[in-house]
Amino acid sequence: MGLRACCARVGRMGRRRVEIVLPDWLDRRLDTTGPLATRSERMRFVVDLARTNVRAGTGGPFAAAVVQSSSGRVVAAGVNLVVPLGNSTAHAEMVAIALAEAEVGGYDLGAGGTEHVLVCTVEPCAMCLGAIVWSGVSAVVCGGRDADARAIGFDEGPKAADWVQQLEGRGLRVERDVLRSEAVEVLHEYVQAGGVIYNAGR
Amino acid sequence: MGLRACCARVGRMGRRRVEIVLPDWLDRRLDTTGPLATRSERMRFVVDLARTNVRAGTGGPFAAAVVQSSSGRVVAAGVNLVVPLGNSTAHAEMVAIALAEAEVGGYDLGAGGTEHVLVCTVEPCAMCLGAIVWSGVSAVVCGGRDADARAIGFDEGPKAADWVQQLEGRGLRVERDVLRSEAVEVLHEYVQAGGVIYNAGR
Repeated sequence: MGLRACCARVGRMGRRRVEIVLPDWLDRRLDTTGPLATRSERMRFVVDLARTNVRAGTGGPFAAAVVQSSSGRVVAAGVNLVVPLGNSTAHAEMVAIALAEAEVGGYDLGAGGTEHVLVCTVEPCAMCLGAIVWSGVSAVVCGGRDADARAIGFDEGPKAADWVQQLEGRGLRVERDVLRSEAVEVLHEYVQAGGVIYNAGR
Repeated sequence: MGLRACCARVGRMGRRRVEIVLPDWLDRRLDTTGPLATRSERMRFVVDLARTNVRAGTGGPFAAAVVQSSSGRVVAAGVNLVVPLGNSTAHAEMVAIALAEAEVGGYDLGAGGTEHVLVCTVEPCAMCLGAIVWSGVSAVVCGGRDADARAIGFDEGPKAADWVQQLEGRGLRVERDVLRSEAVEVLHEYVQAGGVIYNAGR
């Protein structure tokens, strides 16, 4: 009996509980992923996750990972699962943050002085920007710009224009444009594959 | 065997999956909650959830509900579960939105022309503000102001100053200050009870 079947049997889905489960391919990938030392290696890893997510048909063209800064250990990774999970909050960054906190066993990824970095293929939307602050990560590394997501039709939401300064003002480091063109390629591949630009109509 | 025990047995927590589960008392409360016709009834309901969450020691002093606009049916409710779940994204609004989408079976609460309203005891933080847009709700009803949350030490995050206008520009209606003093009372009760003001130190 599979995990979903078990949970559906003993618990009510919907009003009482909701879960986020990674696609099988990503779970397997994490099992074989060693430490990633440099920002380029880390970005190449998440860009490859975003591309695989598009090609496997398991969600949107975005991926993210929480990496322990000193060791390079990938604590958790996420991809955009909005459409397959029917959950508008399941952006890649949100998934990676929630899974990383479950992995370390607490709501603060900065607890005990341990530093973690969030590596995301595209700059965060308004929701994920807020989540980054609450997560306790020390740094954010971004591939594509939010303008690149908007260029294919994704709204980035009611986001503060000075978001980089706001993060830096809270003590987070922000690195942008790391392998930007590779990250943007995945966005274009998603569009060419006829991927859903969800909720863009409002 | 309880739900958690079952899931822990068949699935790995942490790197692969994460779940949000409401406290038992809230699950039972939903079973006995009928339609809520007016904005005051709806706000009184969520303020009572926030107060119960504090007194039961099951989380922070915030609550939210997704209500079907026409029928008044409470589709889902959420309370702040950050500390008990060890999940910094588990704000009341996020919990309510994710559960409501699981209940209706899709990532867009505006699908098919059905209108839903998010009723929250305090104005949304930066993260929840973005989530509100992605959820497809038509309206937001708020009790306390974000300044009330800041007054007891909660950071509201990198939030656009013109957030009301940004929501309205996307077609959402925003109502503020509904039973504000009742909502604020719960914040003060939380402080007096020695509740954790998490992550405020960054």
